[in-house]
Amino acid sequence: MSNSYGKIFRITTFGESHGQSVGVVVDGCPAGLEITREEIQLELDRRRPGQSNITTQRKEEDEIIILSGLYENTTTGTPIALMVNNKNQAGKDYSHLEHAFRPSHADYTYTAKYGLRDHRGGGRSSARETLARVAAGAIANKYLKQQGIQIASYVSSVGPIALTESYEQLDLTQIDSNKIRCPQPLVAEEMIRLVEETRKNRDTIGGVITCVIKGVPVGLGEPAFDKLHAELGKAMLSINAVKGFEYGSGFAGTVLYGSEHNDEFYTDSNGRVQTRTNHSGGIQGGISNGQDIYFRVAFKPVATILQPQTSINDQGESITLEGKGRHDPCVLPRAVPIVDAMTALVLIDFLLRQRTVRV
Amino acid sequence: MSNSYGKIFRITTFGESHGQSVGVVVDGCPAGLEITREEIQLELDRRRPGQSNITTQRKEEDEIIILSGLYENTTTGTPIALMVNNKNQAGKDYSHLEHAFRPSHADYTYTAKYGLRDHRGGGRSSARETLARVAAGAIANKYLKQQGIQIASYVSSVGPIALTESYEQLDLTQIDSNKIRCPQPLVAEEMIRLVEETRKNRDTIGGVITCVIKGVPVGLGEPAFDKLHAELGKAMLSINAVKGFEYGSGFAGTVLYGSEHNDEFYTDSNGRVQTRTNHSGGIQGGISNGQDIYFRVAFKPVATILQPQTSINDQGESITLEGKGRHDPCVLPRAVPIVDAMTALVLIDFLLRQRTVRV
Amino acid sequence: MSNSYGKIFRITTFGESHGQSVGVVVDGCPAGLEITREEIQLELDRRRPGQSNITTQRKEEDEIIILSGLYENTTTGTPIALMVNNKNQAGKDYSHLEHAFRPSHADYTYTAKYGLRDHRGGGRSSARETLARVAAGAIANKYLKQQGIQIASYVSSVGPIALTESYEQLDLTQIDSNKIRCPQPLVAEEMIRLVEETRKNRDTIGGVITCVIKGVPVGLGEPAFDKLHAELGKAMLSINAVKGFEYGSGFAGTVLYGSEHNDEFYTDSNGRVQTRTNHSGGIQGGISNGQDIYFRVAFKPVATILQPQTSINDQGESITLEGKGRHDPCVLPRAVPIVDAMTALVLIDFLLRQRTVRV
Amino acid sequence: MSNSYGKIFRITTFGESHGQSVGVVVDGCPAGLEITREEIQLELDRRRPGQSNITTQRKEEDEIIILSGLYENTTTGTPIALMVNNKNQAGKDYSHLEHAFRPSHADYTYTAKYGLRDHRGGGRSSARETLARVAAGAIANKYLKQQGIQIASYVSSVGPIALTESYEQLDLTQIDSNKIRCPQPLVAEEMIRLVEETRKNRDTIGGVITCVIKGVPVGLGEPAFDKLHAELGKAMLSINAVKGFEYGSGFAGTVLYGSEHNDEFYTDSNGRVQTRTNHSGGIQGGISNGQDIYFRVAFKPVATILQPQTSINDQGESITLEGKGRHDPCVLPRAVPIVDAMTALVLIDFLLRQRTVRV
Repeated sequence: MSNSYGKIFRITTFGESHGQSVGVVVDGCPAGLEITREEIQLELDRRRPGQSNITTQRKEEDEIIILSGLYENTTTGTPIALMVNNKNQAGKDYSHLEHAFRPSHADYTYTAKYGLRDHRGGGRSSARETLARVAAGAIANKYLKQQGIQIASYVSSVGPIALTESYEQLDLTQIDSNKIRCPQPLVAEEMIRLVEETRKNRDTIGGVITCVIKGVPVGLGEPAFDKLHAELGKAMLSINAVKGFEYGSGFAGTVLYGSEHNDEFYTDSNGRVQTRTNHSGGIQGGISNGQDIYFRVAFKPVATILQPQTSINDQGESITLEGKGRHDPCVLPRAVPIVDAMTALVLIDFLLRQRTVRV
Repeated sequence: MSNSYGKIFRITTFGESHGQSVGVVVDGCPAGLEITREEIQLELDRRRPGQSNITTQRKEEDEIIILSGLYENTTTGTPIALMVNNKNQAGKDYSHLEHAFRPSHADYTYTAKYGLRDHRGGGRSSARETLARVAAGAIANKYLKQQGIQIASYVSSVGPIALTESYEQLDLTQIDSNKIRCPQPLVAEEMIRLVEETRKNRDTIGGVITCVIKGVPVGLGEPAFDKLHAELGKAMLSINAVKGFEYGSGFAGTVLYGSEHNDEFYTDSNGRVQTRTNHSGGIQGGISNGQDIYFRVAFKPVATILQPQTSINDQGESITLEGKGRHDPCVLPRAVPIVDAMTALVLIDFLLRQRTVRV
Repeated sequence: MSNSYGKIFRITTFGESHGQSVGVVVDGCPAGLEITREEIQLELDRRRPGQSNITTQRKEEDEIIILSGLYENTTTGTPIALMVNNKNQAGKDYSHLEHAFRPSHADYTYTAKYGLRDHRGGGRSSARETLARVAAGAIANKYLKQQGIQIASYVSSVGPIALTESYEQLDLTQIDSNKIRCPQPLVAEEMIRLVEETRKNRDTIGGVITCVIKGVPVGLGEPAFDKLHAELGKAMLSINAVKGFEYGSGFAGTVLYGSEHNDEFYTDSNGRVQTRTNHSGGIQGGISNGQDIYFRVAFKPVATILQPQTSINDQGESITLEGKGRHDPCVLPRAVPIVDAMTALVLIDFLLRQRTVRV
Repeated sequence: MSNSYGKIFRITTFGESHGQSVGVVVDGCPAGLEITREEIQLELDRRRPGQSNITTQRKEEDEIIILSGLYENTTTGTPIALMVNNKNQAGKDYSHLEHAFRPSHADYTYTAKYGLRDHRGGGRSSARETLARVAAGAIANKYLKQQGIQIASYVSSVGPIALTESYEQLDLTQIDSNKIRCPQPLVAEEMIRLVEETRKNRDTIGGVITCVIKGVPVGLGEPAFDKLHAELGKAMLSINAVKGFEYGSGFAGTVLYGSEHNDEFYTDSNGRVQTRTNHSGGIQGGISNGQDIYFRVAFKPVATILQPQTSINDQGESITLEGKGRHDPCVLPRAVPIVDAMTALVLIDFLLRQRTVRV
C-alpha cells in the first residue's frame, strides 16, 4: 500500500527501471478537466534523461501512453492510467550487480526486506519511478493553474555554490532558461561549471531545491496529522535522494526570538489580510494563510559514482565495485520537475478535501 | 480524516484545549501487550505543564483515564481509548481572543477554513492535542522496547546555544537529568540560562531536538511514498511549531561529493553487515539498514509572547494584543516526549506492516 | 483498523460491553452543523434496552456525553468524541463465561483470533458497540434531513409473520407508534404476540428490517468497488446478527426476465427524470438515480437463549450452558435505529465525496 | 478512490470497455509468490466472452500483459501491474448511444454524476472492468491454495430452475464440466435449455451463484465494521448486476428460533473444535470459526435485451432503443470466476491482516 499517495486525488505508481513499463493510475481526478497528451509529455520531457550534457547521457524517449480515463482530451472521473514503456530493457548486462550491494543504494535493504530483488539497474528503487509522479503531477498542475495557483521550483544550491537572493529577488520565469534550472544566470553558470568538473572527476554532488507556491487560497491543509507542511514534507522526502525539508524560516528560525519571528497581520488597501513578514512560510497551524508558501529540499549526492568502491556481496564478502554506464553527476536539474509534481499532488488533494469541510 | 495517523497501528486523536477532554483511540494495537496505566502516565508526566520553572507554570495534572481496550493490564486487540479531562476549562476568560487573530497562531487560518472556531486557548490547534499522541506513543514504545528498539530524543540546541558533540559522544541516559533535557550538563546549563533570560524578557526562543533510534531491524520502511524517513518527516512536521526535518547527513550532506558521502559496507567480526560511515542515517532507499537512525527537528519560537503586538481582528481592523497567562518560553524540553512518541508511532506501524511483506 | 467506517465522514468506535465506556470519534464532520445533545440522545433512546416488555429488561440509561468537537451546539470541523459510560460494569458475575464458548456467539472466534478475550458479557462483540454508531448516525442524519433526505426503517417480518404491503402502501410515520416498530398496526400486534410467546418459551426469533430512503439526489455512490448498494450492504452486514442484504428486486429479481425487470425511463410533467418501475431500487451502476432507495436486511435469532445448551469450554471439554440475565427475545425493534444510523453514515460519506467529483 | 479494494493486498483497477486497455495494479502482494502468466490467463479464459453458445459471441482474446512486479515468475513485493488491450475499440459505431439513456443501465446515473461520460459500450460501467479483478484474483488464489484454502463458486439457479441439493451433496469438481457451471449435470442441462430459449426470445434471465470456501483457518475477519461476511458482502455487491447477498442461513434463517438456529460446539476425535450444524456459515462475530463458509449471490437479468424499449435521451425526450450486437443472455456462467476472484481478494487481505493482530 506504500505505492499510493493522496486521499482523494490518489495516485498509485508501478514499474521497475528495467521491467516492461513504468506507470501510474490516478483515481479521484475530477471529471471535466481538459488536458492533452502533449501537456503531460511536456513535463516528462523536463525530467527526461539526456536533455543536456550535465545530466545522464542515456537516451530515453519516455513517451507517455494514455490507457484510460480521458475521453476526447477531457477527464471523465474514471481512473486515469498512464504509462511509459522502458526501452532496451533486455539489452544490457546487469549480472555484475546481481549479488553486489552498492554503497548507499537500496540493494541491501530491498534484499533484506523482501528476500529477493530485481537487481537490474535499481529495480523499483530507481528514480525512474518518479516519471510516473511527474505524469500524474502534470494533470494536477493543469487543474491548479486553472485555480490560479503557480508552483515554481528551482535549484538554489549545488554543493557549496548557493544563491544568496531570496525567491522574491529572482525572476522565476527564468528557471528553464539554463540547464541547471537556477534562475540567476551568473550563479547558474558557476553551478554548471561545478557539475561539469564533478563529472570529469567521475564523482557526484548534492544540492538544494527551493519551491515557491503563489496564489494558494487561505484554508488549505488540515489540523493534527495532515498539516499542509507535513504533507509537503512527506511528499518531498519520498523523492529519491532527499535528506531534508524545511519551510518558512526553517532551521534558521530556531535561533530567533518569538518577538522577531512572529508575522504581524494587517489588512492591505484591498481589504486583504496580509502579514508584514513571512517566517511562517504561508502556513499557520498547518493551514495556508494566503501568503506565499516556500520550502527547501536537500538532495544528497547521487550514490552511483564512476570510481572503484569497496563494498560487500550478498554472501557478506568484501568486493570492489565500479559504477558503469551513464549517470547523473548531479540530480538537481532533473529533480526540479519532480518537486513541482509532488507539490501539485499535495495541493490538489487538499483543494479537493477542502470542499468537504463546511456544511 | 486528518486526525488519524498510521495504517495498521492507527491512532485518532480528539479534543480541544478548553473542551471537556483530550484523548485518543488506538485501533490495531496487537493483542497480548502488557501495559499499566502507570506506564502511560509516566510519559504524560514528561510532557506535563508546570514540571519546572522553565516550562509554563500552569498546573495540569493530566491524569490518564483508560476507557477501553485493556483487560487486566493487557491489550485485547480491541480499540484502546485513552482520555485526559481538562481542568478548569470553564473558569478562564478568553473573550479577548474571541475576535482577535494572534500573530503566527492558527486563529486566522482556522476561522478562514471552517467559518468558525473554538477560540478558547487555541482550541484544536493547541499543543494540548499532543498529550493524546504521547499517551498512544507510550503503548507503542512499550512494544518497541520488547523488540529491542530504543528511542532517545534530546534538546541539541536552544537558540544559538548548540551541542557540538554528535549523539555518539553523549551519554543518552542523562537526557532527563536536567530540566532542559540536554544530556551534556554544561551545555544544558547554558541553555537553561538562556531560557530563563528569555522568559524574563517576556519572549520565547526556538531550538532543535535530535532523535536517535538504536536496535531497528533491517527492512523497516517501504518503497515509493511511505519511505521510513518520509513518514518520520511527516510525523515530526505534524508536531506544533516544527519548521524542518533532516535525517542522516541532512542539509549539510548537500555540499559533499558522492565519494565522500557514500557509506561503505563491510561485514563485522560477528558476521553482521555494517557501514563504515553513516551519512545515510540508517536508512537507504527508504528502508532501515540496521545502523542507528538519527534525525533533527527544528522548532520555531512559541508564538505567544507576553509583549504587546499589533495584529487584526476578525473585522480586519488593527488591534494591539498582549499574551496573558502562563506560557512556555521554550517549547523544547516538553517537546522531547512528543518526538519520542511520534517516532514510536511511526516505527510500530512499520514493524506491523513488515509482517505482511513476504509469502 | 476495522473499527472505523467511512472515507470522509469517518467514525471510529471503541468500548466493550462491560468496560468503562462505549463511544465514538467522528472525524470529518463538516463545520457549521447545528446539533444539540438532546437530538443525539433521542436516537440513543430508540436503541436503549428496557424500553418495552419485548426488549431486554436491563435498565441502561445510556446518557450521551460530548467530549469534543461541538462548540455552542455547532460542529467546528474538529473530531467529535461522544461517549456513554457503562453502568454497574463491576457488579455482575461473569465468571461462568470465562472459559465457556457459547453456541453461535463470538467467544470462540475472538479467543482463537486474539489469544485472549474480555469475556464479560460479550466484550467488544456485544451489540452494545452499536450505540456508538447510533450516536454518530444521529449527527449524520441531522445533516441529511437538512438536505431533504429521509430515512425510514421498519420491521417487515418477525419469524414467519411478514408484512405483505410494499413500503409505498404503508404509513411510514407510524413506525414508532408501537413497540415492535412495524407501521402496520394489525401485523405489528401479531408480531408482538409472537415475540411475547417466544420470550415465554425462553427462546429468541429472527426477522427482517426494510429501509426506505427518499429524497436522495441523483449521483450518489461510486463506480467499481464503492457502489452505493455495496457500501449499504457492507454497513448492514456489519450490524450484529445480520445474515443477508438485498436491494431493489433482490433475490426475487433473479427469476425475472430482463424485459420484465428493466425500469423504463420517462420524463414527468415537472421535467424530472423518473422510472416507471423501480426494480433497480433507486440505484443503477452503483449510483443513485433519484428514485426511492429500498433494501431489506435479514436478522438471525439472538444467540443467547434462556435454555440449557451443550457446548465446549476453552479446554475443548463438553459443558452445558444456560443463558442468564435479561436478554432480547427479538433484536428487531432495537435494531431499527441502528439500520437508520448505518444508512445515514453511508449516505453522508457519499454526499461529501460527491462534492469532489467534478472540476 | 472507489477504484481500489483491500487494505493490505490492495488492487486498483482502470479502463473502459472501449478505451485502450483494462488493467489492475496490485499493491501489497507478498514477495516470493511464484506465479506464471499462464496461471493468470487461465482464470481470465473462464471469464472470456465467446467461450460457449450461451455466452456473448463477441470474440475477445483478453491476453494478459504483465507490466511490472514479477521477476522470473516470482513476485518481488513491488506493485504488480497487469493489463489487457481492448481489441477493435475504434471500429464500432456507438453513436446511437451517445445521447441515449438505456433502461436499467448506468448511462443516466454516470452522466448525472460526472457531467459527461464515455458512452462507448458502457465505458467504465461495463462488466469488462471485472477482468481486472479476475487477473488480480488469480494471484490471490494462488496464495490461498498454498495455504490450503479452496474456493468453489457455481451457478445454483437460473431463473426459476434451482438446485435443490446443498453444496455438501454436490461434486464441486464438476463445476467446469458444463457451460453453465452448475455441478449437477441434469439441472445444468435444464438451465442451459432455459438460457438458450431466453436468447432466442432476445431476452435475458437472472440467477444465483453459491460460493463455498473450505480450509479457512479460524480467526479471519475483524470485529465491528470489517466483519468477514461484511467484506464478502461488499465485494459481491460490487460485481455488476448483483442485487443481494446472504451467508449461512441467510434470509431463511430469519424464521427460525434461536434454539433451532444455534450451532452447537463439540470437539471431534482429532481434538478439533467443530459445530454440529452450520447455520452460522462458518462465521461468528464476523470471524471465521473453521467450518465451511458458504454464501449466495443474486444476479438480476442483464439489462441489455435485443428488443425495442422505450426510454429517454439526454434532452429528456422519449425514444425507442433496441440493443445491438452480441450480449450475454445470462451473466451467470461468466460471473462464476468473478465471484471466485472477489472471494480470493477478500480472504487474502484478511490473511495478511491476521498476521498483525497479536504481539
